[in-house]
Amino acid sequence: MTPPRDDRYREARCLVTGGAGFIGSNLAIALVESGARVTVVDALLPDLGGNRFNLAPVREQVDFHELDLRASDALASRVRGQDYIFNLAGQISHIDSMTRPLDDLAINCDSHLSLLEVCRRENPAARIVYAGTRQQYGRPRYLPVDEAHPLVPTDINGINKMAAETYHLLYHRIHGLRTTSLRLTNTFGPRQLIRHARQGFLAVFIRRALEGQPLKLFGDGSQLRDLNFVDDVVRAFLIAGAQASAIGEAYNLGSREVLSLRQIAETMLRIGGRGRVEVVPFPEDRKRIDIGSCYCSFEKFHAATGWEPRVPVADALEKTIDYYRRHADHYL
Amino acid sequence: MTPPRDDRYREARCLVTGGAGFIGSNLAIALVESGARVTVVDALLPDLGGNRFNLAPVREQVDFHELDLRASDALASRVRGQDYIFNLAGQISHIDSMTRPLDDLAINCDSHLSLLEVCRRENPAARIVYAGTRQQYGRPRYLPVDEAHPLVPTDINGINKMAAETYHLLYHRIHGLRTTSLRLTNTFGPRQLIRHARQGFLAVFIRRALEGQPLKLFGDGSQLRDLNFVDDVVRAFLIAGAQASAIGEAYNLGSREVLSLRQIAETMLRIGGRGRVEVVPFPEDRKRIDIGSCYCSFEKFHAATGWEPRVPVADALEKTIDYYRRHADHYL
Repeated sequence: MTPPRDDRYREARCLVTGGAGFIGSNLAIALVESGARVTVVDALLPDLGGNRFNLAPVREQVDFHELDLRASDALASRVRGQDYIFNLAGQISHIDSMTRPLDDLAINCDSHLSLLEVCRRENPAARIVYAGTRQQYGRPRYLPVDEAHPLVPTDINGINKMAAETYHLLYHRIHGLRTTSLRLTNTFGPRQLIRHARQGFLAVFIRRALEGQPLKLFGDGSQLRDLNFVDDVVRAFLIAGAQASAIGEAYNLGSREVLSLRQIAETMLRIGGRGRVEVVPFPEDRKRIDIGSCYCSFEKFHAATGWEPRVPVADALEKTIDYYRRHADHYL
Repeated sequence: MTPPRDDRYREARCLVTGGAGFIGSNLAIALVESGARVTVVDALLPDLGGNRFNLAPVREQVDFHELDLRASDALASRVRGQDYIFNLAGQISHIDSMTRPLDDLAINCDSHLSLLEVCRRENPAARIVYAGTRQQYGRPRYLPVDEAHPLVPTDINGINKMAAETYHLLYHRIHGLRTTSLRLTNTFGPRQLIRHARQGFLAVFIRRALEGQPLKLFGDGSQLRDLNFVDDVVRAFLIAGAQASAIGEAYNLGSREVLSLRQIAETMLRIGGRGRVEVVPFPEDRKRIDIGSCYCSFEKFHAATGWEPRVPVADALEKTIDYYRRHADHYL
């Protein structure tokens, strides 16, 4: 696999928060490949996506610090002097946010407000790109969901991500920080946490396909989703960071390839080469926060930057399964 | 002054959080007058509105606990067995939220999420009414602002209040808690904090009128506002709590009497009997978070419950000034 490269980052000083996590580590690797000087901070909290192995390919090239964003004194020296701050730290499990809402609040709000305060004091000129989520919209009122869609989250995670994104945009308007938010849809690929089943259906599908277990579809599997391969998402972060007109804006990512959960499962099985699809009733805890079909329009970001996803889902799934087969012991 | 009474609360067990504060204490007094069995919790945090003197008229009748909502073990025994929980604890200063955003987050989000978790475990049948704010809307895109207006807060306080209200409504949808939110506009009256100048222009006007100081208008004073006298707001809480159809809903309060800041200042001077109006340039920290003219439609709440404000602003200001003249030593 070739990580995205972007020559505009040559010699740039870049901080990636949550940089040992799924998207953060892929981004850190791409930045190193682009010639950037990369610092990673990650709290490596249990059950979250942070995994030291994720950074194995660039272990010698990144300056890694195990650090919680809420420890603002220690954070200050990491923030000073950075040209770019890619802010990907966070808790993403919708299920966990409902069973441990105060933890979600601490990780997804306290952390980011702390980081923004440190940026305001120590490095107000840094370019900041935050990882938002389509979960901020809640259950779609129309499809595809664009940025004008109301934000009515269906779980605590969505509420806290909404608040944290709004902090970022407010710190631009009031304090002049140079912030952008990308609202991510279902991202998948190498380096994702697949060890437990609480970080989205794709991680579960990948794990079960690897293990030859049946892929369970809740309901009839007709719910539609747009998926983004992590390389395309990393490229979106690189493009957003380099685009001055993106400052103060929030953008959806997304895909023109809209698939049902059943189609995704069947593609996965075809690639994995074994297993089967099993239809099961919706578990109560998931049904209550389910959003039905959901896919997003990325036309605003496309118009501003030209970004669009490049990797077809089937190819991306193949690369993903291949990665986990080679490194199963670090993820299972 | 006669506090609102509501016979539906006779013998009802009621908890008021923030019950030593401005609106909370007025509500606690009204509940006692209505024959309810009232428990008050208040953290009495410095610089916030909590003031033991506010509860002087009902000192013998309320069960008072100095308690932070984040201390959930201690809170559990106060929550158990309550029929109603009026949740008015909070930090309301927009200015303070910008200088100490993490404190605002702790007080306005952690506290309420903690309370909701305690309610879910200990008393899921309680009727809960939360005090939201029109600040959740941010700068109005149209007037009057109704509940369909997008929530784009212009300060940290507005973001955190928005998150906390959304928690309340989510806990209804997901966990079946019986929650309602009232989005308050500019509330004024006896028992408000007027000691410092960071809790809104009305408190400042009242204080300066009492002291015979000039009333300062930022800009030209043409910004429009709707004011609610605290007795009308207390009545709205009593009505909302008793209305089953209000569960799961958010409602604006407001007034049909829309006044410019200049008109309000001039009315205040006429009643206070001395002083003058002074036009001054907008201070930078306030200008950045100012929302221009803002007034809200309360037609949704009126249609659901028949509530409308009863006390004209001039009468209400007269009662207010009179209260502070009699009790100046407790507020200045």
